[in-house]
This record gives sequence, structure tokens and C-alpha cells, in this order.
Amino acid sequence: MLSVIPIAEALSLVLEKFSRGAASLETVSLEYASGKFLGADITAEEDLPAFNRSTVDGFAVRSADLLGCSDSIPAILEKTGESVMGKACVIPLTPGSCVYVPTGGAVPPEADAVVMLEYSEDFGGGQFAFYKSAASGANLILRGEDLRKGETILKSGKRLGAADIGTLAALGKTQVPVFKRPLVGIISTGDELVPPGESLRPGQIRDVNSEMLKAAVGQHNAIAISKGIVRDEYAALRNACSELILEVDVLLVSGGTSVGEKDNMPRIVADLGEILVHGLAVKPGKPTIIGEVNGKAVFGLPGNPVAAFFIFDYLVKPLLLAMQGAKVEREQVEARLTRAVSSNHGREEFILVRLDGNSAEPVPSKSGLISTVSRANAYFIIPRDQEGLPKGALVKVTRL
Amino acid sequence: MLSVIPIAEALSLVLEKFSRGAASLETVSLEYASGKFLGADITAEEDLPAFNRSTVDGFAVRSADLLGCSDSIPAILEKTGESVMGKACVIPLTPGSCVYVPTGGAVPPEADAVVMLEYSEDFGGGQFAFYKSAASGANLILRGEDLRKGETILKSGKRLGAADIGTLAALGKTQVPVFKRPLVGIISTGDELVPPGESLRPGQIRDVNSEMLKAAVGQHNAIAISKGIVRDEYAALRNACSELILEVDVLLVSGGTSVGEKDNMPRIVADLGEILVHGLAVKPGKPTIIGEVNGKAVFGLPGNPVAAFFIFDYLVKPLLLAMQGAKVEREQVEARLTRAVSSNHGREEFILVRLDGNSAEPVPSKSGLISTVSRANAYFIIPRDQEGLPKGALVKVTRL
Repeated sequence: MLSVIPIAEALSLVLEKFSRGAASLETVSLEYASGKFLGADITAEEDLPAFNRSTVDGFAVRSADLLGCSDSIPAILEKTGESVMGKACVIPLTPGSCVYVPTGGAVPPEADAVVMLEYSEDFGGGQFAFYKSAASGANLILRGEDLRKGETILKSGKRLGAADIGTLAALGKTQVPVFKRPLVGIISTGDELVPPGESLRPGQIRDVNSEMLKAAVGQHNAIAISKGIVRDEYAALRNACSELILEVDVLLVSGGTSVGEKDNMPRIVADLGEILVHGLAVKPGKPTIIGEVNGKAVFGLPGNPVAAFFIFDYLVKPLLLAMQGAKVEREQVEARLTRAVSSNHGREEFILVRLDGNSAEPVPSKSGLISTVSRANAYFIIPRDQEGLPKGALVKVTRL
Repeated sequence: MLSVIPIAEALSLVLEKFSRGAASLETVSLEYASGKFLGADITAEEDLPAFNRSTVDGFAVRSADLLGCSDSIPAILEKTGESVMGKACVIPLTPGSCVYVPTGGAVPPEADAVVMLEYSEDFGGGQFAFYKSAASGANLILRGEDLRKGETILKSGKRLGAADIGTLAALGKTQVPVFKRPLVGIISTGDELVPPGESLRPGQIRDVNSEMLKAAVGQHNAIAISKGIVRDEYAALRNACSELILEVDVLLVSGGTSVGEKDNMPRIVADLGEILVHGLAVKPGKPTIIGEVNGKAVFGLPGNPVAAFFIFDYLVKPLLLAMQGAKVEREQVEARLTRAVSSNHGREEFILVRLDGNSAEPVPSKSGLISTVSRANAYFIIPRDQEGLPKGALVKVTRL
């Protein structure tokens, strides 16, 4: 019998024990930084914009010159020049004059507003009429208004999306410090397993977990090193584990984790290092092992693919994120159940749902077939002592 | 002046005009299929599992043999053998007998239930005592119970996640039909622009859109071909566009899209092909061009990075998804505003928010600085005729 612990406790232990230390940095070109985790706070090294800019096509003015103008009494200003894109604007803006500025162009230092072209009228001879006053600051971005030199813009540990890449470009950061991608070893064990490409003999099933875990590891910016299927035999499995753990930061072995005679993983983890946890109070996923070998995390995941999927999502994914400096927060939304669900196991239970807006439709999954997860897009957890939840109950849903 | 149309109308036009035709398929190995879009419905070619399997370590039994047994009057069955993982179970299960089966192992065809090991007692001499009756079907997955031959499991157009990869592995699909990745050409234009790695002279700003759009294109499984900055000059920009459109499925040019003298894009799109839309009733993003050249979509995006970002998200992203067979649905959640927001433009307005659970904190973004998008994780749209929304208002939020 396993002596099980709650999954939240297991998660705390994993993060506390393994998320430090492994974090190391490398520098990549901006064009390869998308999807990686930022390795340092990013600070503006200059004011942005570096000059006062117009946000419209129009005339840079001194707003005082337009005070009191109206449809019947326009203000007449003399155009003394045009600002050119990409150049400083050195045309002096004396009282009574205006300077044409295209969108994004520099305005003369004396200008405190820009009037849209549409609100002016060309009277000929360089004279332009204005029929509306302009508030000081209108259609203008002042130097440093976007960012002040020294301001922190992006925090270490942020996963870089398109807008972040744009922000780095805006700051001129073409070399970006990022966390190194963790290396994750993957082994499937079980004498009933055959590679997905081979035909099945009676009693055999295909190895689902190798490909699934490779994909899951890749989604979190880690690098998978998969050894495929290893026979469920002590020496072979022990050798495979002890070799692979030298190459990787985290080792995932699925199968052979229970307490049966044929379950070698508990003994192998104990012999190579230390078992920290054997058994989780959750369904599915009870026969999970968390161990430490050479100071590295070893997860013995259930052979059942749905269980392996959940335990990866709940325990391994947060570790991979933490190793890359990310804040580990489950992004949850509240949703209402469209049907009642029952649970009665004395263990927490993962329930798959199809989340649509703010309603959550439970996806039935009696068996360990991974295609039930394909039909879902989120899950929630029924607490240990809850016998079920009625239709319409609010649940905290985690997206897959 | 632009004659603007609503963004929803522009989106319909884009999808209707450009999402067909370009869709072509290729076949990739399962290990490279993650993140790609499935190119055909996937159907089970056999029953799964292919044999009756146990979900626990225990004894396969005829449930009738345990009828009426109890703590005081156990049923005694004779163990006649053990099922071996990966082999068919050919041990006959005669009445009064039981067969040991490990988790996942095949059970004898006559077995209709499995009793967990913990609920049996070894009486010696091959005799095992059972103290509880078992429901027919208990701890058993019957042949075909997961999937029936001919059942459709995954639909064409689905973006393949880890569980889908696992499902394909379970079905033995090691060669996967996927949609080809669209090729997207990217050009930035504007004489004020310099590459992010160069130092700025007065009046210059860094090209944000090239790197941002490359990252955004890559996030949606398309391939970016970026030509960097092209001078905002008719001949140079026209040549760059007409060459690049030959190589790509979609062309994105940011900058030069307004109605100023220096704005070359309207004329270039009209000269090379046809302008379908010039001007969107949205803030930011008004100076957007949608055109057709050689039957391909050309987007003239605003030079303002925040506007380019929104127009990409609202118009270009759905097109890239549609070209890869995906159902184009905005995944939205309802959230409550933590502060009032005002809007008063006669145009729809994109409002950035920081979504936390079900509350949405508006992120102020006066200017075009892309770092304001970095601070947000979602946005919503204020309708055209709405002057603003009060604190606590429910809004439909789209994640970034």
C-alpha cells in the first residue's frame, strides 16, 4: 500500500527542492528570443521617445497662438517649414508661426501642441487658418513620456511574447539574456508497450507517453531527450535511468511506479538516490514517485497516459517554469458546471472539462485513454472530502 | 480623409476572400507535429483497447462466483495462472477460478470483473479468499470501450497539443497530415526607422514592428520572411512589395498607410493590385489598408506598434489560423472592470487589460509604445457608440 500525500504538498516540495540552482542564463539574438524566458530585468537606458513627437499629420503650434480662435474668427499662422521624418526638427517656432509635422515626426522644441491637418485651411502665401484652439500637449508625445531612463520595463522570468519582443526592439536590446532551456529525459517502461509505428500483437499497447511527454516538455520551452521504451526489468531500467540522469536536469519515467512485484521504479529510485514521495492522494495519478538522484528531480509517472498527463501538468510543468525563472501561478478562471459531477474516493480528483466562455462541460473519462484529454481544454480539481458538485456549481478551472 | 469600415466587417471580408485556396497539406513525423494544425479528420482504424484490460493489480474473476460473499463467508477461488504484460491471456477462467492480472494486463475472455489485490487473501495452496462481491465490469476496460473502429477522434484544423500527440500515438499514426505553414512577408517602412541594433540620431526611432511581427507570425505556426526596413519612397517600396509577394502567402507592410503626401502604400497597393479597404473605424488602427495583389492578401498596417499589434491580432491572426484549417473563434471570457474606462471617438476602441481570474484591470496606454502591451495580457473592445464603461461592468475579454 502507498502512503499518499496531497498533491499541493507534493508541488510545494518539488518547487522548494528543485527549482533553484539549476537556473543558468545564456544570451540569444532578439530574433530567437520569442517563447523563451527573460533572464534579467530590462531597464530603459534612455528616454523614449528621445524627442517630442507628433501623433498625427498636422501643424506643430504654440497653443497660446490659437487661444480664442473660432469658426468666425480664425487664428492665422505662418508656415515656416516642414519637419522631415528621421531628422531632428531645428526650425524655430516663433510666435505666430506653425511647422508641418507628419505622424511620428519631431516637433520644434517650442511647440506644445499639434493640430490635425483637417482642422486647418490653406489661405495661400504660406498662411494657414485655424478654427479651434488646442490644448497644451494635444497630439504630442513628449520626450521620456513613454519611458524614463532607468525605468524597469520587463521583469526577469517573463515568457517573451510578440509585444515583449517589440518592447526589446524599441529599447535597442538585440542581445537578450534568457534562461537556458532545461533538459528533460523521458523513458517509458512496460513490457506491454510497443513504439507507435509498430503493429500490435495481442496484449500489447502502443507507447503513448513518450511522444506526449516530448510534446508537453517542448511546449514549456524545455528540451526533451527521449530514450523511448525500456524493458520493465530492474537492471535495464536502472542502467537507462542512471545514464540519462547524467545528461538531463529532470528525468521522467512513466510506468512501473506502483507497488506490484513487477514495479521496479521504487527500488531503482531508492537505490540510485532517494524517494521523497511515493503515492499521491489524487485520482488519477496515485502511483507517482518523486525522487532525487544526483541532486536532480526524478518523477516516476503513472503508466496510464491520462494520469501521466495530469501529473505532468500539475507537478512537472510548474517545475520547468520555475527552473526558467517564471512565477509559478496557476492561471485559473471561474466557470459554472453544466452538469453535476460525482466523486467519492477520499482523494482529490482531476475532472476534465470543455470550457466555453464561463461554462464548463465535464468530459467523461472512465478509462486511461488520452483521447478524452484531446476532447477537453481545461480541468478542475474536486477536493478530497467533497462527494461531488451540483450542476451550476462554480469551479476554478485551469486551462490545458 | 479615410472612409472607414467597422473591424468586424473587415474581418469577414478578409476571411471570406483569403482563407480558402491557400490551404495545402504536407505529412510530418509525429515527433514534429506538435503545434501544427491537423490536415484531416483522424479516425480509429481498430478497436482500442484491442483486448479486455485490467485497470488495477488484482484478480480477474467471474463476478457470479463472488455473489453473496462477505466478511464472514468469503468466496474461495483457485488461482489458475497469471496474465503476463504484453501477451494475450489464454488461461481459461473456469467457474471457481481466478487469474492474477497486473494493471494494464489482458484478462481471460470469460472474466467480467477484476478485484483489487488488497481485497483478497492468500489462503495458501493456490486458494484465495474474497470478502466482497464485484460488480460486472468492475476495474475492467472492454475491447473497443475507449474507441470503436471508425470513430472520429480528432478533427481537421485542430492545433495539436500534447494530449493530441498522445492520441495519435495511441492510434499508431506516426505520419501526420498537417496544413503547410503559411509564409508571411514582413516589411517596415518609414524614413525615421533604424534597425534595433543601431544607435539613434535625433528624430529617429527603432523599428519595432519587424521583430514584433516576426514573433507574432511564428506564434501562429506561420513562417516569417522579413525584409527589414525599406525606405518610404514609392519605387523602392513598390519593388520590395512586388518581389516579396511572389514568395509569400500574405504580405504585411507597416507604415506609410495613411493619407499624407509621404504615404506610399495606398498608391502601391492600388498599382500592384486592388485596395479592398482603406481605413478602419477603430482606435488605434484607423490607417489600415487591406488589399489584394496576385490573389494574395496584403495588409498595410499602421506604423504605430500598438496599432499594428492590435490589427495583427484582430485581422491577420484569424486569417493565418483559417489558412491552416482552424475554426476561427475568439476565445473570450467575461470579466469585471476594476476601474471605469472612457471612450468617446465614434470608433470602436481596443482597451488593454490585465486579466486576473475574472477581473480585468485596464492598462493605460496613451501613446503608441509597445511596452504598454507587455504590461497587459488581454484586451476588450468598447463598442462604437458607447461613451465608456463604469467600474464593475462585465466585458468580453480576449487573451493575448
